[in-house]
Amino acid sequence: MASNHIVKSYDEDLALLKTKLSEMGSEVEDQIIKANQALVKRNGGLADLVIFSDQKVNVLQQEAEELGVLILATRQPVAQDLRAVIAALKMASELERIADYAANIARHTPDLDHDLDLDQPLAAITQMAELAKTMLSDIMAAFADGDVQKAIAVWHRDDRIDSVYADLLSDLRTRMSQDSEHIQSYTGLIFVARCCERIGDHITNLAENVHYIERAKTYIDGKVPLS
Amino acid sequence: MASNHIVKSYDEDLALLKTKLSEMGSEVEDQIIKANQALVKRNGGLADLVIFSDQKVNVLQQEAEELGVLILATRQPVAQDLRAVIAALKMASELERIADYAANIARHTPDLDHDLDLDQPLAAITQMAELAKTMLSDIMAAFADGDVQKAIAVWHRDDRIDSVYADLLSDLRTRMSQDSEHIQSYTGLIFVARCCERIGDHITNLAENVHYIERAKTYIDGKVPLS
Repeated sequence: MASNHIVKSYDEDLALLKTKLSEMGSEVEDQIIKANQALVKRNGGLADLVIFSDQKVNVLQQEAEELGVLILATRQPVAQDLRAVIAALKMASELERIADYAANIARHTPDLDHDLDLDQPLAAITQMAELAKTMLSDIMAAFADGDVQKAIAVWHRDDRIDSVYADLLSDLRTRMSQDSEHIQSYTGLIFVARCCERIGDHITNLAENVHYIERAKTYIDGKVPLS
Repeated sequence: MASNHIVKSYDEDLALLKTKLSEMGSEVEDQIIKANQALVKRNGGLADLVIFSDQKVNVLQQEAEELGVLILATRQPVAQDLRAVIAALKMASELERIADYAANIARHTPDLDHDLDLDQPLAAITQMAELAKTMLSDIMAAFADGDVQKAIAVWHRDDRIDSVYADLLSDLRTRMSQDSEHIQSYTGLIFVARCCERIGDHITNLAENVHYIERAKTYIDGKVPLS
C-alpha cells in the first residue's frame, strides 16, 4: 500500500508539472501571435504588453523548475520517470527562451517607420510567426500525449521557417542597399526575422526532448531522426 | 562503511561532472577567441575550424548530460548535492549555446568584404569577445570554487558588453545609411554583434547557476543580486 501511494503521488506530481508546461506553452503561443500583431500594426501599446508578459513566463518557468527539483528530491524517479522530469525542466527553459524572443520581436516595433511600405517583409514575418505558433501547439500536444511521431513531424517543419527566413533576409538586404533612408526599419526587421528563425530552432529542441523521454536518446547537431 | 563508500562515490561522480564542465568551458573560451580571429583576419579556414569544433562541444555536453542523469538515477542526491547536479546540467546547456554563438560568429566571416575598412567595428567586436572570454573563464573558476561573490561580480560585468554593443549597433546603422554598397558586410557584423551580446547574457545565466547552487535561489528577469 505504501508503495502504491508513493507511485500515485509521483504520477500526480508529474501531471502537475505537465500542466505547468502546458500552461507555459499556451502563454508563449499567445505572446508570439501578439508580438507579430504589435509589429504588423505598429502598435506600441500591444508591444509593451508582450514585453511585460514575458515576466509571466519567467514566473511559470521558476514554478516548473521548483516543482521538478522537488520531484527529483522527494520521489527520486528512475528510467523513463527520471527522463520525463529532466526533459520537462529543459522544456521549461526552452519555452522561457521562446518567450524572450517574442518579447524581443515586440521590442523592435518602434524601429518600424509608420510611413514606409513594409507589407511584403511583414507578411513573411507573419508567416514565420504563424508556422511557429502551430508548431509549438503541436509539440506541446505531442508532449502531453507522448507522441514521438508527431514530435518528429514538427521537428521537420522547421525547414519551412528556415526557408522563409533566408528569402526575407535576402529581400531586406536588397531593400537596404536601395533605400538608405530607412536603415533603422530594415535592421529592426532583420532582428525580428532572426528571432523567428531562432524560435523555430527552440521548437526543434522541444521536439528533441519529447523524443528523449520516449526513446532515451537525444540527437545532436541537426541529426533529425526520420522515425 | 557502506554509507561512507556511497558518499565518496557521489563526490567522485560530481568531481567528474565538474571536470567535464571545466573542459567544456575551456573549449568554448577557445572557440570565442578563434571565431573573433577568423573574423578580424577574414580567415575562412579558421572560421571553418570553429564551425567544425562546435561538434566537440555538443559531444561534451551530451557526455555531461548522461553523467548528470546517471548521478541523479544512481545517487539520488538531495539539497545542495541535488542543486549542484541540476545546475551543472543547465550550465552544460548554456555552454553549448555559447559555442553555437561562436560558430555563428565564424559563419559570418565570408560576409566581410576584404577591401572594406572595418577596423573600428571589428575592434569593438574584439573588445566584446575578449570581455566574454575573461568573464567565462572567471565564471568557470567561480563554479569550481563555489565562489558566489566572484559569480556575482562576473554577472555585473555583462553591462560592459551591452554598452559596447549599443554603440556598435548605432555605428553600423550609420555606416549602412552612408554606404549602400556594403550592406552584406554591415548586416554580417550586426549579426556578429548580436551573437556577442547574447554570449554575455548566457554567461550571466552561468553566474545565476553558481549562485543557485550555493544559495538555493535563482534570480529572474534581470534582478541581479548585489551580494
